[in-house]
Amino acid sequence: MVQLHRSAEPPRQELFRRLNQTPGGTAALVDVRMHVLAGLAEHPEWQVIDADLCHLFSSWFNRGFLTLERIDWHTPAIILEKLIQYEAVHEISGWRDLRRRLEADRRCFAFFHPALPDEPLIFIEVALVKGISDAIGPLLAIDAPVGDPQKADTAVFYSITNCQAGLRGVSFGNLLIKQVAQKLGSEFPRLRTFSTLSPVPGFRRWLASSESDIAALPDSAAALTAMRMLSEPDWHERAESTSNMRDALMSLCAHYLVYALRNGEPADNVARFHLGNGARLERLNWLADTSKTGLQRSAGMMVNYVYRLDDVEENHEIYVKEHRAVASHELKRLARASVFAQPARKR
Amino acid sequence: MVQLHRSAEPPRQELFRRLNQTPGGTAALVDVRMHVLAGLAEHPEWQVIDADLCHLFSSWFNRGFLTLERIDWHTPAIILEKLIQYEAVHEISGWRDLRRRLEADRRCFAFFHPALPDEPLIFIEVALVKGISDAIGPLLAIDAPVGDPQKADTAVFYSITNCQAGLRGVSFGNLLIKQVAQKLGSEFPRLRTFSTLSPVPGFRRWLASSESDIAALPDSAAALTAMRMLSEPDWHERAESTSNMRDALMSLCAHYLVYALRNGEPADNVARFHLGNGARLERLNWLADTSKTGLQRSAGMMVNYVYRLDDVEENHEIYVKEHRAVASHELKRLARASVFAQPARKR
Amino acid sequence: MVQLHRSAEPPRQELFRRLNQTPGGTAALVDVRMHVLAGLAEHPEWQVIDADLCHLFSSWFNRGFLTLERIDWHTPAIILEKLIQYEAVHEISGWRDLRRRLEADRRCFAFFHPALPDEPLIFIEVALVKGISDAIGPLLAIDAPVGDPQKADTAVFYSITNCQAGLRGVSFGNLLIKQVAQKLGSEFPRLRTFSTLSPVPGFRRWLASSESDIAALPDSAAALTAMRMLSEPDWHERAESTSNMRDALMSLCAHYLVYALRNGEPADNVARFHLGNGARLERLNWLADTSKTGLQRSAGMMVNYVYRLDDVEENHEIYVKEHRAVASHELKRLARASVFAQPARKR
Amino acid sequence: MVQLHRSAEPPRQELFRRLNQTPGGTAALVDVRMHVLAGLAEHPEWQVIDADLCHLFSSWFNRGFLTLERIDWHTPAIILEKLIQYEAVHEISGWRDLRRRLEADRRCFAFFHPALPDEPLIFIEVALVKGISDAIGPLLAIDAPVGDPQKADTAVFYSITNCQAGLRGVSFGNLLIKQVAQKLGSEFPRLRTFSTLSPVPGFRRWLASSESDIAALPDSAAALTAMRMLSEPDWHERAESTSNMRDALMSLCAHYLVYALRNGEPADNVARFHLGNGARLERLNWLADTSKTGLQRSAGMMVNYVYRLDDVEENHEIYVKEHRAVASHELKRLARASVFAQPARKR
Repeated sequence: MVQLHRSAEPPRQELFRRLNQTPGGTAALVDVRMHVLAGLAEHPEWQVIDADLCHLFSSWFNRGFLTLERIDWHTPAIILEKLIQYEAVHEISGWRDLRRRLEADRRCFAFFHPALPDEPLIFIEVALVKGISDAIGPLLAIDAPVGDPQKADTAVFYSITNCQAGLRGVSFGNLLIKQVAQKLGSEFPRLRTFSTLSPVPGFRRWLASSESDIAALPDSAAALTAMRMLSEPDWHERAESTSNMRDALMSLCAHYLVYALRNGEPADNVARFHLGNGARLERLNWLADTSKTGLQRSAGMMVNYVYRLDDVEENHEIYVKEHRAVASHELKRLARASVFAQPARKR
Repeated sequence: MVQLHRSAEPPRQELFRRLNQTPGGTAALVDVRMHVLAGLAEHPEWQVIDADLCHLFSSWFNRGFLTLERIDWHTPAIILEKLIQYEAVHEISGWRDLRRRLEADRRCFAFFHPALPDEPLIFIEVALVKGISDAIGPLLAIDAPVGDPQKADTAVFYSITNCQAGLRGVSFGNLLIKQVAQKLGSEFPRLRTFSTLSPVPGFRRWLASSESDIAALPDSAAALTAMRMLSEPDWHERAESTSNMRDALMSLCAHYLVYALRNGEPADNVARFHLGNGARLERLNWLADTSKTGLQRSAGMMVNYVYRLDDVEENHEIYVKEHRAVASHELKRLARASVFAQPARKR
Repeated sequence: MVQLHRSAEPPRQELFRRLNQTPGGTAALVDVRMHVLAGLAEHPEWQVIDADLCHLFSSWFNRGFLTLERIDWHTPAIILEKLIQYEAVHEISGWRDLRRRLEADRRCFAFFHPALPDEPLIFIEVALVKGISDAIGPLLAIDAPVGDPQKADTAVFYSITNCQAGLRGVSFGNLLIKQVAQKLGSEFPRLRTFSTLSPVPGFRRWLASSESDIAALPDSAAALTAMRMLSEPDWHERAESTSNMRDALMSLCAHYLVYALRNGEPADNVARFHLGNGARLERLNWLADTSKTGLQRSAGMMVNYVYRLDDVEENHEIYVKEHRAVASHELKRLARASVFAQPARKR
Repeated sequence: MVQLHRSAEPPRQELFRRLNQTPGGTAALVDVRMHVLAGLAEHPEWQVIDADLCHLFSSWFNRGFLTLERIDWHTPAIILEKLIQYEAVHEISGWRDLRRRLEADRRCFAFFHPALPDEPLIFIEVALVKGISDAIGPLLAIDAPVGDPQKADTAVFYSITNCQAGLRGVSFGNLLIKQVAQKLGSEFPRLRTFSTLSPVPGFRRWLASSESDIAALPDSAAALTAMRMLSEPDWHERAESTSNMRDALMSLCAHYLVYALRNGEPADNVARFHLGNGARLERLNWLADTSKTGLQRSAGMMVNYVYRLDDVEENHEIYVKEHRAVASHELKRLARASVFAQPARKR
């Protein structure tokens, strides 16, 4: 078997190992893979290159070689600049915005690899607040007064960004969240809850694709009305309309999060990530993100995934074995109130 | 092919990658391999484990991830202590001895890996002197006055030690010598020559095994006499005897270094290392190391391998293609004077 | 005498020494002096406090305790932010502007004290260019292409800023320029010239106060016309007017720089600083700074003070003994061409 | 007053400030003072130089500029070597001895000044043990098994050494002990007691000088016998003799520590230091240090001074106002049992 493995190893890997010995080699190879990935559709034969690089990177970027570092106003500008550039979830509008996100009531952490000292691999942004946040606006407000982190009882992970396109498939996020939760827990003993405030990015696409299914269900009038209202401009600013839509859409979204599957896994990719990490679906928040993207993808809703460090392992097991979403009573109740009257697993 | 490679990769590698994620994981795995290697003879079935670890380590300890660091009296004691413990060529007798080896006219460099911050992987000791050294004693003398490194014209690499038994087969020495030569060259522009002062550790074993071959040669009387004298106690302290032995043994040793092969490569493992790196055999030194080990293995001789950075690539090519030792005129002359009158390649 | 000195030392100094022992003490005391200085006019009795703090600071901020550090894009944001805030000569308009000033063809250095790690005491900005710059605009242009510093023959010190109001009277600038010149000289062996590009901030005030003196001189018509034109809006944008004014104003300004004194020293405070450091007045540049401040104070002119490290000591001696400005032939010629026909020293 | 102070400041101070600006200046000046102090007896006129340097050093080495650093096996050898060289209380016999003093159940801390990065100013050695130590031998035993510091309830400060003769009179010890106690307290929450294990270096000299006073007291026979036995060789090894001497000598020593004064302050200089810092005399230990020095100076006894951080301020006040030793009941009882029947303050 050793023999087989040896002889099977492509000479490309040895070439990549040699290239890595030159100064800047690691960065250059990560770059190469970024281009390979971008060109895969056109050059399917590049898949073997991609596979070799991915194999090497899994070795090289093993968690044991990464360092977790706090990012704050003492961090070199060359790194901070990259946060502004990379932030994928809630855009950073400039240095002033960045600075607010690094104040005393916020935390930011990143993984680094020794061969890429100026390049964060992934970073996470955290707000230290009282109670689980139900809307993103207040967390991002640049002029919000700085709170006292010692009085916070909740850490809200409101953004997590993979920085290196060339490292796709080499996963760090799972470890990052847990390590940051532990670190914060020991720095701030009053913290009780570790929760995300996350979009539901696949909801509206799923909703659109489910329209005919829904129409075929009994009692679907309210749901269909609500769905139609979503296409009206500025619907979220009209109180009367939103109060009408709210019940229908929230229960549809809860159904989507708890029961909708794709290839046997939760359909929403953010849900897949956090549930796979062992978090649980805690709460759905109405009009929590009324940015253009938030309305377009998530119908303005956001969800809290809660990480309870004691339950994370067990939840992860449940997820891996049964691909079942661990969810709060409230979310399950909401899902059961949806037009999908008999919450049978959707196929 | 990708498919084959993938399916061929043993699950052990994934296990080792996971183990590496725990704190201290890398060190523990290097340790594991040390024990595996030590037990291979008794447990040949461990060879697959060894192969997997060796494969991973080649990835992890890629030169691109190593840092070259100077070791001096500002280095933490925890590292210095390991030099004392690991030094394999010329034993360090304690802190005073070590300190002399780190004075202004000496240099010491080591490769480190970020995951093993307190563990040198390999280190090299250098003396900055005038002219190529022809004996090890003066370089090791603890009470020798400290020279002015700015006046040195020669850097003598007098010891190179691999520290981690668990990293056997993952080679760093080649790169270390060249990088150190470059570094010294730019710090001390007056340095003209980069040379080793090396033992000939396989000479006497080869000599013993060649005794009957030699006896069969014409005119072998002087050679056989010299060989017999080697077994007399303290032969090197009797001037008359040594002057008699000198010519015969030096030409035999030159023959051994330049022409003797094993499995198609130079028979001496130190020669193999330096010639493979692109150095050239420069000079053989009589009574250069009269320590017990030096007499027992090398008949007290030492050899200088010279690294000329401009020629290193070409020499390396010659070596790889022809397995031919690049040697100075003097050494070739010595070799031709040996009892092996017609210096045919020995098989 | 010891006894006298001892008994004379005010107890305030001991109090300040004690305060300095608390965390953040040094920064707090520098702050105190800033407020004391600001309030001196209203509270002349605070002068004793000021004197004690100044005495202590001269001890504490002795050059032997300062470190010279390069500021670049790897510097922590908390320090970079302060450059933006403190820059007193040519305002930094934001992070983009700052970044351009830290590119490969620029250098920035600062002195730091170990007790104030996040606070630059003084910083200097340098452009690496070909030939002595004759205008500030191109040096400050944010979109200017980045030059190759290895091809530069001239280092232009275009801004030097004291950061700590509380350290007034504790002088670092002199040492900073010379150390930076040495450092740059050894990094870039092709650098031949170290020059400033400086304003003449006292010129127009002096000109206004000299109006009646000038009017009393023979042949003063051209000078008075030129002076009058200065008050017209946008005079510098009209080519015909400026070409008329040019000769008269440049020779007046040269006279001011070379001969005008106040309290026995050069009247211009920037001239006083650089001449006192041993630089020499090299060249006067017309329309070199057409910013609002540049026009208002210096009539748009800028001057190059050249630091020749070999002459700096001698120039400094000449200055200290004779308070005589060391100037180039060209500047002296210009000065002699001024309306002050007989260049007698002005009193 | 400012005027007076200014004019009174000797030009030497300005000279020293200038010298300090050169590389290595601070170290050189500390060295100068060491030589000045050593030559004072012969050159009383140097006293003014000494006074100026001492004045400057008090400024420069202000606690606010010092950093407290842990010394352990990760510390550079150049610093560890100096501990071996400087240790003044319980000699360090070499690197093995030093290493034992830096193991997990020991702590060592030092103050450093940024201008003397390789030179500890003062260092303190601590043992983390169960119960207050009553003898120095076990703490210094090189082969003693390493204890678990997490189980310790007591930190014993068993050695404190001023390193720089040239900084005599610039005091750091007081601050060092308190800061180390705080640091240890927060690292090891189980620590209840912070105590020294200190010699009584002036006891036997005082005892000798008090012989006639004692002889004049009533009931002095036992005391005089005990005192005489002290001059017999190896008295401490004979159990019967020591049990006879014990009561008499311990009560005399307690009397010395609690009541004996010199120039209005406690006669013993170690007592003066710790009592002045706000510690209290806790316990006297018989045959606690049977080294040559221990027997010669302290008659083999050692004393524990306990630092209770809550009482330190108040004890310090009592000491400053009344020069009264704060002592435990036990020590006062012992003192009252001494031949000085009526414990009147000795003059």
